[in-house]
Amino acid sequence: MIGAYLPGNSTTELREAPVPEPGHGEVLLRMKASTICGSDIRCIYHEHLGKGPEGYQGVIAGHEPSGLIVKTGPGCRRFSEGDRVIVYHISGCGLCNDCRRGYMISCTSAKYRRAYGWQRDGGMAEFLLAEEKDLIHLPGELSYADGAQVACGFGTVYEGLRKIGISGDDAVLITGLGPVGLATAALCRKLGAQRIFGIDVVVERMKLAKDLGLCDEVLASGADNVDQVRKLTGGFGVERAVDCSANDAARATAIRATRKWGRIVFLGEGGRVEFNPSPDIIHDQKTIFGSWVTSTWLMEELVERLVRWNLHPADLVTHRFALDKAGEAYALMASGRCGKVAVCFDEEIR
Amino acid sequence: MIGAYLPGNSTTELREAPVPEPGHGEVLLRMKASTICGSDIRCIYHEHLGKGPEGYQGVIAGHEPSGLIVKTGPGCRRFSEGDRVIVYHISGCGLCNDCRRGYMISCTSAKYRRAYGWQRDGGMAEFLLAEEKDLIHLPGELSYADGAQVACGFGTVYEGLRKIGISGDDAVLITGLGPVGLATAALCRKLGAQRIFGIDVVVERMKLAKDLGLCDEVLASGADNVDQVRKLTGGFGVERAVDCSANDAARATAIRATRKWGRIVFLGEGGRVEFNPSPDIIHDQKTIFGSWVTSTWLMEELVERLVRWNLHPADLVTHRFALDKAGEAYALMASGRCGKVAVCFDEEIR
Amino acid sequence: MIGAYLPGNSTTELREAPVPEPGHGEVLLRMKASTICGSDIRCIYHEHLGKGPEGYQGVIAGHEPSGLIVKTGPGCRRFSEGDRVIVYHISGCGLCNDCRRGYMISCTSAKYRRAYGWQRDGGMAEFLLAEEKDLIHLPGELSYADGAQVACGFGTVYEGLRKIGISGDDAVLITGLGPVGLATAALCRKLGAQRIFGIDVVVERMKLAKDLGLCDEVLASGADNVDQVRKLTGGFGVERAVDCSANDAARATAIRATRKWGRIVFLGEGGRVEFNPSPDIIHDQKTIFGSWVTSTWLMEELVERLVRWNLHPADLVTHRFALDKAGEAYALMASGRCGKVAVCFDEEIR
Amino acid sequence: MIGAYLPGNSTTELREAPVPEPGHGEVLLRMKASTICGSDIRCIYHEHLGKGPEGYQGVIAGHEPSGLIVKTGPGCRRFSEGDRVIVYHISGCGLCNDCRRGYMISCTSAKYRRAYGWQRDGGMAEFLLAEEKDLIHLPGELSYADGAQVACGFGTVYEGLRKIGISGDDAVLITGLGPVGLATAALCRKLGAQRIFGIDVVVERMKLAKDLGLCDEVLASGADNVDQVRKLTGGFGVERAVDCSANDAARATAIRATRKWGRIVFLGEGGRVEFNPSPDIIHDQKTIFGSWVTSTWLMEELVERLVRWNLHPADLVTHRFALDKAGEAYALMASGRCGKVAVCFDEEIR
Repeated sequence: MIGAYLPGNSTTELREAPVPEPGHGEVLLRMKASTICGSDIRCIYHEHLGKGPEGYQGVIAGHEPSGLIVKTGPGCRRFSEGDRVIVYHISGCGLCNDCRRGYMISCTSAKYRRAYGWQRDGGMAEFLLAEEKDLIHLPGELSYADGAQVACGFGTVYEGLRKIGISGDDAVLITGLGPVGLATAALCRKLGAQRIFGIDVVVERMKLAKDLGLCDEVLASGADNVDQVRKLTGGFGVERAVDCSANDAARATAIRATRKWGRIVFLGEGGRVEFNPSPDIIHDQKTIFGSWVTSTWLMEELVERLVRWNLHPADLVTHRFALDKAGEAYALMASGRCGKVAVCFDEEIR
Repeated sequence: MIGAYLPGNSTTELREAPVPEPGHGEVLLRMKASTICGSDIRCIYHEHLGKGPEGYQGVIAGHEPSGLIVKTGPGCRRFSEGDRVIVYHISGCGLCNDCRRGYMISCTSAKYRRAYGWQRDGGMAEFLLAEEKDLIHLPGELSYADGAQVACGFGTVYEGLRKIGISGDDAVLITGLGPVGLATAALCRKLGAQRIFGIDVVVERMKLAKDLGLCDEVLASGADNVDQVRKLTGGFGVERAVDCSANDAARATAIRATRKWGRIVFLGEGGRVEFNPSPDIIHDQKTIFGSWVTSTWLMEELVERLVRWNLHPADLVTHRFALDKAGEAYALMASGRCGKVAVCFDEEIR
Repeated sequence: MIGAYLPGNSTTELREAPVPEPGHGEVLLRMKASTICGSDIRCIYHEHLGKGPEGYQGVIAGHEPSGLIVKTGPGCRRFSEGDRVIVYHISGCGLCNDCRRGYMISCTSAKYRRAYGWQRDGGMAEFLLAEEKDLIHLPGELSYADGAQVACGFGTVYEGLRKIGISGDDAVLITGLGPVGLATAALCRKLGAQRIFGIDVVVERMKLAKDLGLCDEVLASGADNVDQVRKLTGGFGVERAVDCSANDAARATAIRATRKWGRIVFLGEGGRVEFNPSPDIIHDQKTIFGSWVTSTWLMEELVERLVRWNLHPADLVTHRFALDKAGEAYALMASGRCGKVAVCFDEEIR
Repeated sequence: MIGAYLPGNSTTELREAPVPEPGHGEVLLRMKASTICGSDIRCIYHEHLGKGPEGYQGVIAGHEPSGLIVKTGPGCRRFSEGDRVIVYHISGCGLCNDCRRGYMISCTSAKYRRAYGWQRDGGMAEFLLAEEKDLIHLPGELSYADGAQVACGFGTVYEGLRKIGISGDDAVLITGLGPVGLATAALCRKLGAQRIFGIDVVVERMKLAKDLGLCDEVLASGADNVDQVRKLTGGFGVERAVDCSANDAARATAIRATRKWGRIVFLGEGGRVEFNPSPDIIHDQKTIFGSWVTSTWLMEELVERLVRWNLHPADLVTHRFALDKAGEAYALMASGRCGKVAVCFDEEIR
């Protein structure tokens, strides 16, 4: 079979690799959709940053895979041939305390924790070998491209929103309107958020958030954002804020534009933040949550909700490529002139 | 001025009473809307049940008042002449631990705790004397009839829903579709509930809940309600249930139709409940909340939300009467052949 | 090897069985301590009650096992020969939503959910075959008899106490002072409970709770228990209550003796409960939690805490028997004239 | 009567002032104990910093007063002559949303929000005029010097600890061992904290924390504090951290020395904080709470607990002065060579 590799010099290599054979507790997937994450571009595509759990080990790329089980190894208990599935993007040991909570993302086993597409072969190939314990059923109501978005993007957002709680009681501010920010807006809508405000620096992203009807108001990033949000909320600020930007100033804005007793969650990765605790969180009794990815079981609950809500994450996919055009896919994503970019197979190419 | 009294023999008496003069920290309201609560019928109209905090002390009836401040006594700090206000229906001492939390409903002062319309003159008169600390601002976007419904009905519901949490994650079951059940449905909608199911025994109420678009499905009360709800929810049961019926069987249904890890809140007053802890709550890790009325500060937050949601509690009022027809109003409410019944004044009669 | 079986006629049979061979992801334990649970007596020893997940399928008894790994099958990732371990008493499929949360107790797989000692061979034998995913490390500071108590008893209690929260802020009432009630008292002490009150009907149990210093006050079960608890708490009632009795009246006492805004958790299995929602939970804003067993990951956290607290669950073991005296062990436990009863091996017999 | 004023040049002035007469809802206190807060030194004593709610308006100083009611004005409902009381240090309007929650500290009324000792006469005088709504009963088990410490210091700490939850499950790190840090340690002990670690720069403070038995380990502030705390906690870090230092580096230490899923609360006022969200809070799923003072009702609950715990805040008072030595009291507090400093009257001078 063919697989796409990222040598770390802003190119993509297609190479031949043997079709793997599922061992005990493993399955072989016919890949259907594999989306590109911002972290792939930042940490692998341009250069190979990071080590250990952050390091790229020369494997087939793609950590947002969704596909069809075509073969199961011995010992599989829940999934079988013909099942449509999403793959939780980190394969943990399954036995440490973090894995037992369902958070394989923070598996503490140096030996067994391996992210698909980073330390073990990922979804940018015709077939993928996955562990059964990493699989989530993909219901018929959702496409594979929907499924590919659940693992890393929507799952991460859902976890953060669960931590701070979102309902019709809340106006929500989202700083950063990339794929994660748009996913936040889409989920806040379905959770019932009363109003949704977005902030970004890129005009195209701001436009997309409006065009998709995901934000009620979109603001250009600037020094007066806090005042603007206050004005939009009767002087109070929003009840909830979600940072998807990883930008220092935007994080401070998220904190400061939040109302007394409000909650802020940080999802965007990297960088720093600086603020003044007394006016920014102490006097207004605010709380700041860190949130990382999600658990397998909450990801299952999210999939159930997506069906109930008739919400299709693939609506955020703006470009689809066949595997032999993977190079173009990564290049486009690296350019930033797009929404979400997917490598697709079979019926998912359209 | 004229006031309506309830002698306890299923009649209403109109009597002359002096217009009161506001003392320190008190205001005089020109009454605009005063709705009738189920508890007025149950505990006062037909006979005088209850003692102490539950006892009717021969005062002007009406514990859901809303009006216009026409005069303020000395020492008022926040409210002034011309303000439109809602009255929190229990005037507590303001100083005990319960009052300091804002829950005057459970004021522990035997001397100072007095419910409007039960132990101190209520809203069924041309004027009402109220303590400033019992007032909630009524914004221009809401009518007095909206306001009259906030204090007792919608406030009680909002408190219960805050305790269990309602968002787009949740399908909700409501047992009992009287005014409190309908208020529950209306608030669940605005909080984002994914689906809303109602159960009642009265055909008219079931029809009303459907006609107002407040419930997605309405079920006739029966032995197979749990199965029916399971069927409507993919076999799982609802994430949240709210009992507004005070009926033993309905309470058990609310518990049993709730999903693993779900939450149930009891709002309906009186009666008993019986269930089997192991299958009903232990094995499914469920939680049952008791919830009573609300606090002054949460009532203010509810009013803010009603405006943001453009939700008008008065939509549940089916009949309006002038004060001189108060007898007809109580008789109609006692008959049950109605939604909410209001005695109105001036611009609220229409 | 020899194993103990329960034919269901209040006797115990010792029979020869082959020493099992660990397969993929399995380990073989040299048994060290295996305690008897009240549910073994109630549902298996006297007669075979229950079906499905509650049914006894003629296997070697004992669902509270602790031992030493003497052999590992292929594919084991975390545990190895020579490790001292506790066995989570229910072996779930490991893949359903409940198992993924760590709650194998409520595994939804009809095929793979099997309780040790009920549907698969348990700890009343010289060796035990267990799945690696069911194991918890037993630190050197704890004995095997300590470990045997963690799985079913202390774990169940810890989960319940986590749900309601216990700290120095709280006086706690425990209804039922059997092994689960005593474990509750022991854990409440370490969590910092300000005062601990116990209620039971059996004089010996009441004495044990006092002698072990686990309760500050022990009351004989009676109609005036609520008043007694109120008197002990300045008229308020306790902040938290834990029912370990499964008795209807005791459950109502637990609810009624709890203070305004307090929390009650039901741990005791079976029976029913009846109460009056308005005075019992609504007017005092109380919450009742159902809680079942615990998760593998919380059990690990409990083990860590036992070491930090220097708390030894085996202090509740009053009688130890060798395997060939298993019959006497079950008969004693059935008599009720004892604390916790253990079948022990090697160094654990003393 | 004599009162102490702070002209803002590091001196104290004693001046004659008339004994006030209580009006409606007011009481006159015979002062018994009045402690000095760090904020008095920082914002008033050396110079007059701050404006509005932070501004000193030339009044009698002292915002931590406790005394005996010697006269009540008309309209008092709960307190009467002869009652021993604590004064909540901010007199709010009593009617805005914040006051209705009990948080007069954040009263939104520009006209009525006045801190004792800052914008209205405080406790450094023979008599104090207070509003009845600002009073907390001081039980006979506590001294006036105990009471003086409750309002500002212990109340602020208790609120923060309630937000993050402290029990025997938790090891706690306290950064900053001034009066607020020591109060934190004392309350954590009573809440059941498993271990308590403190960090400070001042040798005397470190010694005091050890000598009073309030901390299990005290560390000198330094670059390796995070490693030290990890070593003390089996590599994990503490479950909870409380910053009482307001120091940027110490705040970062509090965040970084906290364990996965842990909670941090910021109590110390002023300054800034800077950290790296990904490693510091996102990947470890941590939460940072801001917390400001407390509510009147939680302060009452704290007083109840102090009695139940036999905890005496006055144990932290190292020096007592009569009113005519107020100058020495402030000078000593400004020097930092002391614990808590109190101006006392009558039986409290000893």
